[in-house]
Amino acid sequence: MVYGAGAAGGVSSDKPFSEDGRVSEHPFDVDTSAAPVEPGLFRADLTDRWTTANKTPNGGYLTALLLRTLGTTMPVTDPLTCSVSFLKPGSPGEAQIRTSTLRSGRSITTGQATLEQNGVPIAHLVGSFIDRDASSGRTETFAQPPSLPPVDQCIDPDPSTIFEGMSILERAEYRLATPPGWALGKPSGSPSGEFWMRLEGGRPVDAYALSFMVDGYAPAVLELGEVNPATLQLTIYIHATPAPGWLACRHSTRFVRDGYHDENFELWDADGNLVAESHQFALLM
Amino acid sequence: MVYGAGAAGGVSSDKPFSEDGRVSEHPFDVDTSAAPVEPGLFRADLTDRWTTANKTPNGGYLTALLLRTLGTTMPVTDPLTCSVSFLKPGSPGEAQIRTSTLRSGRSITTGQATLEQNGVPIAHLVGSFIDRDASSGRTETFAQPPSLPPVDQCIDPDPSTIFEGMSILERAEYRLATPPGWALGKPSGSPSGEFWMRLEGGRPVDAYALSFMVDGYAPAVLELGEVNPATLQLTIYIHATPAPGWLACRHSTRFVRDGYHDENFELWDADGNLVAESHQFALLM
Repeated sequence: MVYGAGAAGGVSSDKPFSEDGRVSEHPFDVDTSAAPVEPGLFRADLTDRWTTANKTPNGGYLTALLLRTLGTTMPVTDPLTCSVSFLKPGSPGEAQIRTSTLRSGRSITTGQATLEQNGVPIAHLVGSFIDRDASSGRTETFAQPPSLPPVDQCIDPDPSTIFEGMSILERAEYRLATPPGWALGKPSGSPSGEFWMRLEGGRPVDAYALSFMVDGYAPAVLELGEVNPATLQLTIYIHATPAPGWLACRHSTRFVRDGYHDENFELWDADGNLVAESHQFALLM
Repeated sequence: MVYGAGAAGGVSSDKPFSEDGRVSEHPFDVDTSAAPVEPGLFRADLTDRWTTANKTPNGGYLTALLLRTLGTTMPVTDPLTCSVSFLKPGSPGEAQIRTSTLRSGRSITTGQATLEQNGVPIAHLVGSFIDRDASSGRTETFAQPPSLPPVDQCIDPDPSTIFEGMSILERAEYRLATPPGWALGKPSGSPSGEFWMRLEGGRPVDAYALSFMVDGYAPAVLELGEVNPATLQLTIYIHATPAPGWLACRHSTRFVRDGYHDENFELWDADGNLVAESHQFALLM
């Protein structure tokens, strides 16, 4: 069976995984592809390949699906920012996506996309897009990339041996300098960490993949002995398409209040550029 | 003339400035009050009391107006998160606000509000609300408040002597340990800072005031010799109603890319609690 944009009637991607003209069968390409039904309405299938500890599809996966679908309706197609509200847990199965334009400006176009299942809203995204090739201006960074050993000197934490039944753990690959405390059953009490990350099999990372990856690792609150937080709100700023290779990541939680907490996430590419950052607000379950 | 909710037919506030039963005439109360026209539609007057260097109403002011108006339509009224897209600069004058509920859950209700002038969308906000009194759970902070001398040992930078014609500078008060580089005509090159802040005249700070204050100070990029950035996206996480008194603030820009940049903002209260944090994405003009 051939998956992907062509076969499934889904939206086309500007940057398909395969560079030889074949339709990508990579799970990320297949599962973030929605089929146009009529202007402003798409049909999507949420698969069971992105299931978290909550037994529901991961928020980063839903974000990438919504952002990519919205992008197909925009006059400029490079995602710049997006902000998602998670309204109700989704379930594997059929879903609808409704899109509309909020404003089309000279250089920035902003739209919204709502994911629905059985007529109930699951997630709502607002996204802004630009033509990145037409952008220029001052560039300067006032932060340092994570301090990690080279990928080949790091360990594979293989979290699937710790968490059973979480299919999302097969969608990305991770390398760490040392095993995290939570993986050893000894949470460190310090909710932060640095690690390498890439998509399953090394599929190149585009802007849509970044929007998944910022929510694609074990939450920092696992180092507090917590499990299973539910993301309520996720805001992502995308700075650039990464250079090829693994991405160096840093995440942290800075406060927990009444169970509500933040998580901050950075992705740095092989050239030392901050390519995306995100902030999310989540609730301990 | 008596301004405010009663006199102007605006929405009521759960926490009015005056505690003696009189309607508040404080500019924040008056200018963030919108009048209901029909379900889901409000009339607002953007005043000229919040004008920035761009000669347009400040984004934090518009955020507070939208969040407060949306709050009046929600079954639970304590703002928890909000995310705003600024679509087009506003102008002092009449405006409309359209509100709708995205989802009303067991403990969290999420809605959206769009600000329009002459039929054109100016700003779009998504906000989530809870009943904070009904919230409980783990509370822990992994960051430190700003390190500032006591308020009475700090200086008043009086930025109105530097920037002319910016009415917003009269809406809040600031105290700093030392004058910022940009105020001396010598930007430091380091886009970060710490300072005290309160509303004009010491009006108590509620959640809606927090949503203004996170955008109510000179942007960190002024220390790069830049002026006049335009906010494109602003996300705010509100943790608590502050204890009375001045708020200790910290802000920073961590990257600038093609003129696009972030600004991170924290507000800490007199009890040492982080009461709000925000992240915004802006463009150098």
